[in-house]
Amino acid sequence: MLGQVTNPTGKSFGSDNHAGVHPAVMAALAAANTGDVVAYGDDELSRRAEQMLCAASGAARALLVFNGTAANVTGLSLMLRPFEAVICADTSHLNVDECGAAESILGSKLLTVPTPDGKLTPDLIAGRLVGRGDEHRAQPRVVQLAQLTELGTCYSLPELRAIRDFCRENGLLIYIDGARLANAVAHLGCSLAELAGCADVLSFGGTKNGALGVEAILVMTGSLAGNALFHRKQLMQLSSKMRFLSAQIVGLLEDDVWLKNAEQANAMARRLSNAIAGIPGIDLAYAMEGNGVFAELHRDVAESLQEDWRFHVWSATGNGRCVVRMMTAFDTTEADVDALAGGLRDRLIHVKQPTA
Amino acid sequence: MLGQVTNPTGKSFGSDNHAGVHPAVMAALAAANTGDVVAYGDDELSRRAEQMLCAASGAARALLVFNGTAANVTGLSLMLRPFEAVICADTSHLNVDECGAAESILGSKLLTVPTPDGKLTPDLIAGRLVGRGDEHRAQPRVVQLAQLTELGTCYSLPELRAIRDFCRENGLLIYIDGARLANAVAHLGCSLAELAGCADVLSFGGTKNGALGVEAILVMTGSLAGNALFHRKQLMQLSSKMRFLSAQIVGLLEDDVWLKNAEQANAMARRLSNAIAGIPGIDLAYAMEGNGVFAELHRDVAESLQEDWRFHVWSATGNGRCVVRMMTAFDTTEADVDALAGGLRDRLIHVKQPTA
Amino acid sequence: MLGQVTNPTGKSFGSDNHAGVHPAVMAALAAANTGDVVAYGDDELSRRAEQMLCAASGAARALLVFNGTAANVTGLSLMLRPFEAVICADTSHLNVDECGAAESILGSKLLTVPTPDGKLTPDLIAGRLVGRGDEHRAQPRVVQLAQLTELGTCYSLPELRAIRDFCRENGLLIYIDGARLANAVAHLGCSLAELAGCADVLSFGGTKNGALGVEAILVMTGSLAGNALFHRKQLMQLSSKMRFLSAQIVGLLEDDVWLKNAEQANAMARRLSNAIAGIPGIDLAYAMEGNGVFAELHRDVAESLQEDWRFHVWSATGNGRCVVRMMTAFDTTEADVDALAGGLRDRLIHVKQPTA
Amino acid sequence: MLGQVTNPTGKSFGSDNHAGVHPAVMAALAAANTGDVVAYGDDELSRRAEQMLCAASGAARALLVFNGTAANVTGLSLMLRPFEAVICADTSHLNVDECGAAESILGSKLLTVPTPDGKLTPDLIAGRLVGRGDEHRAQPRVVQLAQLTELGTCYSLPELRAIRDFCRENGLLIYIDGARLANAVAHLGCSLAELAGCADVLSFGGTKNGALGVEAILVMTGSLAGNALFHRKQLMQLSSKMRFLSAQIVGLLEDDVWLKNAEQANAMARRLSNAIAGIPGIDLAYAMEGNGVFAELHRDVAESLQEDWRFHVWSATGNGRCVVRMMTAFDTTEADVDALAGGLRDRLIHVKQPTA
Repeated sequence: MLGQVTNPTGKSFGSDNHAGVHPAVMAALAAANTGDVVAYGDDELSRRAEQMLCAASGAARALLVFNGTAANVTGLSLMLRPFEAVICADTSHLNVDECGAAESILGSKLLTVPTPDGKLTPDLIAGRLVGRGDEHRAQPRVVQLAQLTELGTCYSLPELRAIRDFCRENGLLIYIDGARLANAVAHLGCSLAELAGCADVLSFGGTKNGALGVEAILVMTGSLAGNALFHRKQLMQLSSKMRFLSAQIVGLLEDDVWLKNAEQANAMARRLSNAIAGIPGIDLAYAMEGNGVFAELHRDVAESLQEDWRFHVWSATGNGRCVVRMMTAFDTTEADVDALAGGLRDRLIHVKQPTA
Repeated sequence: MLGQVTNPTGKSFGSDNHAGVHPAVMAALAAANTGDVVAYGDDELSRRAEQMLCAASGAARALLVFNGTAANVTGLSLMLRPFEAVICADTSHLNVDECGAAESILGSKLLTVPTPDGKLTPDLIAGRLVGRGDEHRAQPRVVQLAQLTELGTCYSLPELRAIRDFCRENGLLIYIDGARLANAVAHLGCSLAELAGCADVLSFGGTKNGALGVEAILVMTGSLAGNALFHRKQLMQLSSKMRFLSAQIVGLLEDDVWLKNAEQANAMARRLSNAIAGIPGIDLAYAMEGNGVFAELHRDVAESLQEDWRFHVWSATGNGRCVVRMMTAFDTTEADVDALAGGLRDRLIHVKQPTA
Repeated sequence: MLGQVTNPTGKSFGSDNHAGVHPAVMAALAAANTGDVVAYGDDELSRRAEQMLCAASGAARALLVFNGTAANVTGLSLMLRPFEAVICADTSHLNVDECGAAESILGSKLLTVPTPDGKLTPDLIAGRLVGRGDEHRAQPRVVQLAQLTELGTCYSLPELRAIRDFCRENGLLIYIDGARLANAVAHLGCSLAELAGCADVLSFGGTKNGALGVEAILVMTGSLAGNALFHRKQLMQLSSKMRFLSAQIVGLLEDDVWLKNAEQANAMARRLSNAIAGIPGIDLAYAMEGNGVFAELHRDVAESLQEDWRFHVWSATGNGRCVVRMMTAFDTTEADVDALAGGLRDRLIHVKQPTA
Repeated sequence: MLGQVTNPTGKSFGSDNHAGVHPAVMAALAAANTGDVVAYGDDELSRRAEQMLCAASGAARALLVFNGTAANVTGLSLMLRPFEAVICADTSHLNVDECGAAESILGSKLLTVPTPDGKLTPDLIAGRLVGRGDEHRAQPRVVQLAQLTELGTCYSLPELRAIRDFCRENGLLIYIDGARLANAVAHLGCSLAELAGCADVLSFGGTKNGALGVEAILVMTGSLAGNALFHRKQLMQLSSKMRFLSAQIVGLLEDDVWLKNAEQANAMARRLSNAIAGIPGIDLAYAMEGNGVFAELHRDVAESLQEDWRFHVWSATGNGRCVVRMMTAFDTTEADVDALAGGLRDRLIHVKQPTA
């Protein structure tokens, strides 16, 4: 067992959820706390939040919910009938990390697809389009993407548009899990609307990007929005004091706080990725295309640093090595990154590398 | 049409949800926003919130969720198998105001009971205990009470204990919807533990009592708690930045803010109720036993005041009259009450009463 | 305790389900058992069964399922989205006798209505049309009728058409549970198509009318039929050896066996009803309008005859009296009826009637 | 396009579902059709059927349902809570051919596993036992096997016992889809009880083995049976005229008709398999271990014979070749097999084989 290396700044690389609330969001919450306001979203601030979301994304409707699993389930609920299925990457959060909510609450089958990097392609989707029209088979109806993916990779706009075109030709709808959509926009340098326009419904994550706890569902295809309020309420996502969800959105959207937060997180991931490139015995596991650095290294080293920097051991890769996930957030600093890079370098240059 | 009477203080009597966040809760949120914290509740503040809830109520476990519908559905999910049913008042929030969540998400049948005042009794419950053991019938398993009820009434401890004893003798569990449990504790002058001890599982509402948005599920019967974390996650109620739900609870429980808030709301409802007793043409519709005043008056009068004071028209009662619901909150003041009472008095003494 | 009276013919009046299979149905089953046939309904006999059903009823599609609960759940599944609700009589089979299948499998709320005779009316339906458009409320979408009702009563065609007109004006669909539809047709003297035309979807029961076990779902409103095959399969109602369900339907429809069976059952119920009219101490509880006789009598008398004639004690009515249900079937004979009537008369003239 | 070869005997090799009803079953149905019998299984014949099933298998309870999908869903419903998942082969009928019933009706996640031959192993199961105790993950609880598998292969008793031991050590229950359990018993030469003893719950298929339409659920682990009647009713599988399901079971179990039927089907599959071994250009795709022969051949040949012999093209395998499934049934004869083998031989010796 290697000795513990101390994290001097205390910053966690475990998740962008470990970060707190951005000051602009806290200020917006305080500002919203003045006097009485009608409940359930029938208030000025909530109308403003929805307008800002629609203006920025081109959505027909925007609805706020409490967390990412709820955004996925509620968003998908607008698109699926009981006998219809969702094609998704087998590594997707929807499939792996939501305790079976899609199956249990929506009753929907997930048609999972192995991928090298968390990303679907028209070919991978086509491979699951069997048995259409056959009453014995759940019928594929929605393609679920994540942007960023669960492996930190980012679809390019051409990749997304190719999927969108394929889906339209094949009678499929697209849902994008955008828990880290801001990081994707920042990475691609595109507009939110360009990205959102590739989906029929998508989520726009606030929580991982500096909010206290709010996610928006953006309904791009207006015909899917008609009953959305009923779905949200039934799925236990209607906030009575809605103004405090709305305030978070306003706080993030005003002055492009959301984008600046994502850019900062991405820049810090880039810095970490660059530093790792110069350290022997550690290699990127997936392309670094947002705010997550997935790297492979010796498990002993990973474990000696893990408790202090809190990153996750993502998977074992054999030969005593493993992949770790290191996430940055809106408040990750250069000093935070340099400390972790230093810890990794310090460990790895003292560890005898296994012979391949 | 009568002319509009203006609400001089602007205070809404429409719902305790119209109020904002209590300063102690805002302070607790700000205090929680320091540095990084592990997500999903594995943090000190969250442990403290659960400990405080368990200590105050005698619960075996306490879990935080986002809103009242979620508390009801998640709480009930711990108690029910697919073929089991819930006995509840037909006026209950669970039955009326949750968009069918219990049926859709849990798949549970609600066996509804008409009541004069929103309160179940052993006799009313017994009336639904037919067909037990008959495979054609959904099997009654949980009795769902609300405390306060949806009609503003409050079970006495002897009433609750009689129901508890009846349920134990008859193999029934008790769930209490405690969205306004604090108001019930304040009204009864009992401890939270005395009240909670009458249930197997109950909710303890924060949102209507000064929180931004949090409800606690208190699991009194420990054997029901084993899988509660899975249920909460699958039901889309696991907050990633849990510390900010926990902070609200801590803010409410420290220095008994929750109880003082409820006492203030109740006192203002009492003041309103007393004032109404002296006004002709308006009568209490149900006993005033918390923070809700339900009163019957001429519909024209109700409508002339409704927009400005925002109270709900609850039901029509014939002869041109209706029942309105006027709710007080932790921040309702004497001036607010006196203004509404004045408005009612002013209107009603000028209106020719219908002859009964 | 009164002594036992013996049932000389052995015929049960407990249920039309106690009867066996009509010879024409058995013959049709045997005739279908020749050589190999493609499974799942893609065979000549199945096509013929559907054509016969559609021709007789005017349905756009007809689908066969295994039993009455399945017919109701599958039929309703074609009409409901998750947030929509069903208005039905509180005495309906759907609400009382299907172990919560509608709630558990469809996730649908039932909005139950007390009725004097098991029959809904436009006014009773209107009373449940509250909260439309309010996201907190499950939205009424389907009115579920039973024809015959669970209390043996039969809607007249004008009554049904009034409900149909009301539903069309109010954006409601109609589902008819036709487990005893044949008896209704026989009672009304109308055509199957006249009756079926009052519904958007309905079931046409075979099992209680001489089949071994088959029910048809008739989809009258073609736009609801598009995905019916998927619903049936997912709801576990697709028979692999479908020809043997289809054969039963053909056996019943050829030579109007279904109607003759119903007419015989109805005639025997009429005979029983007439006999009862001449016996002191027993009174019809509901109008006799099909093949069920509901009568009120002293509980001791009921119990002394119940074991031998197997009728059900339906409900207690106070003063030592109860309502019993006596059902006739396609194979009930005059001798069977006369024996029961004799048993009742024999008992009742010897029993001291309670003073009212 | 090759010319059509005519099937001289007309026997379908498309499915064991294409066969009709065995004479012993028809006789049992006729014998059951005498007079009135109490509905829903409370009759002598139904008790006898259950006793025979329990005696033959060692089951604590046996319940009859209508079809194979229902047997799987109902059986699994006894074993699963909402947050629990089922490990199964990705080729399983449960996953592929039941229109998402497990997800939609039970709300259960299926954790699918690729296999070379449709068979799970302890190692394959172990690969899906990740995230146990982690609230974000659906919790593996049931291992679902099929015996025969969907690919016609058969677990040996040692293989099953190794899985059973692994499952017991790992807190997993076993469900066996026994739609073709009789063929497995015949293939292994073991007793039904030896096979059933490897499961906690299993189905025993009647329909594919000469019944008109009935499957039995055998509950081996008595503690899982307590609420089975409620589950069956709610899942729309309670037959009112139950005697006619029971009669089929009695007809199959008396004189070991079920076993003789399976032996005949297996022998014919063996004959077909042996014949194929001598034909160039066609190869077994999976081990022939029951009543299904999966063979790879040139697609043109397959298609030229498919319409007449009705076998399924199961999958494409590249290079112009495909796998076909040829099923035998209780009534397949040597002449039927020889005709098909002749057709294959005739076609294949005239077709130029592709160069590998």
